[in-house]
Amino acid sequence: MKLHEKKGREEAGQFLIEGEHLIQEAMKHNLVDTILYDESNPYPQIESFKCAPSVMEKLSKNISHVHLLAICHMPTPTVLTPSKVILLDDVQDPGNMGTIIRTACSFGFDAVYLSKGCVDVYNEKTIRSTQGALFHIPLIRCDLQNVIQTLQADGVQVLATCLGKSIPLSQVAPQAKVAIILGNEGQGVKQSLLAKADQIVRIEMDGFESLNVAIAAGILMYRFRKGSETI
Amino acid sequence: MKLHEKKGREEAGQFLIEGEHLIQEAMKHNLVDTILYDESNPYPQIESFKCAPSVMEKLSKNISHVHLLAICHMPTPTVLTPSKVILLDDVQDPGNMGTIIRTACSFGFDAVYLSKGCVDVYNEKTIRSTQGALFHIPLIRCDLQNVIQTLQADGVQVLATCLGKSIPLSQVAPQAKVAIILGNEGQGVKQSLLAKADQIVRIEMDGFESLNVAIAAGILMYRFRKGSETI
Repeated sequence: MKLHEKKGREEAGQFLIEGEHLIQEAMKHNLVDTILYDESNPYPQIESFKCAPSVMEKLSKNISHVHLLAICHMPTPTVLTPSKVILLDDVQDPGNMGTIIRTACSFGFDAVYLSKGCVDVYNEKTIRSTQGALFHIPLIRCDLQNVIQTLQADGVQVLATCLGKSIPLSQVAPQAKVAIILGNEGQGVKQSLLAKADQIVRIEMDGFESLNVAIAAGILMYRFRKGSETI
Repeated sequence: MKLHEKKGREEAGQFLIEGEHLIQEAMKHNLVDTILYDESNPYPQIESFKCAPSVMEKLSKNISHVHLLAICHMPTPTVLTPSKVILLDDVQDPGNMGTIIRTACSFGFDAVYLSKGCVDVYNEKTIRSTQGALFHIPLIRCDLQNVIQTLQADGVQVLATCLGKSIPLSQVAPQAKVAIILGNEGQGVKQSLLAKADQIVRIEMDGFESLNVAIAAGILMYRFRKGSETI
């Protein structure tokens, strides 16, 4: 039950997942420490506990009854030579966070860097929204100012989005080494980070001029996806 | 309280909104029938009821206390000559639905057509995710097969997304009159609708190959946004 809370997860260095698909993905990456089940156990090689259905229901965040849960340890992220990365500045919504991680994975990005003010990536809603992608891409909580400096020294173009003075996205050529900064749902990207970016980009809109941060992330990552610079 | 349920909303032809921004948007479109408030009432010209804070709390779906609620009637959608539209085939998640409506509005789309199996657009989570966009764009629940026929007769190119035999999106030229079909979160676009589409398009990915439907919608709508065909 402690793993349902951020504090408990951080103290244990562990998190809880449910559902066969997610557990399969975690198994592939050797992240599963313990299996909890109430019917059959497909992973007898792992430390396992058979639980009463009422216990499973209590541990699960799902509405329908879950027969398999796993306690995983948090992976240690390593990024060798990042050429496409996402930087998230205080993204708050667990669903947005999960969707951005899933999209980054699908467009061949190498890592997601998270400011200290971002929502915890190991909460149930974020994990569910990633559809398992969180096991495939390094998620690194850090100081974004420092990361930007390191990336720029390494020849990575750092882009940020802003509706103010900016270049329309369709006029920015795809590039091999790119970092995209995305901001908080209410405030956007912090001024101190905008000031460090190499280019300020805007997604062209008509009329309503309001995009969810995960949608903006998706459009940008598609534009700069792995392989796009060769087209 | 009946307006918290789909059945109650449909019987009354009304829905409930909360928060100043949303109510302002609804006022602009003359959709507000009744105001409920517990402190001050900025709209005395509308039928209004002062309620105890405990009543407001009961009526609100918000976590923090809300001081203003409005009962609105559902708008009667009219689309004259649609040139850019979205067709949603059994989209289930309220958040995805709201985000797609918001994005359609921002990219200058004329209407959103919804299959009968789509989630109700007047539930609280969808309304919140639209950020008010639902008042700016016609939302039409209908038989998608019939709509496709009408659109095609009118010279609109109908596109659907599918990971199977398909044209990469970057090879499809922007067009002035376009309809984009998006499918259910689990099943994608129904075979019977795919068969009617003029072009089957795929969003190029790398590796994980999994996109949230609202993200796919965002990438496609940006590509075919109002004004894109003139660039």
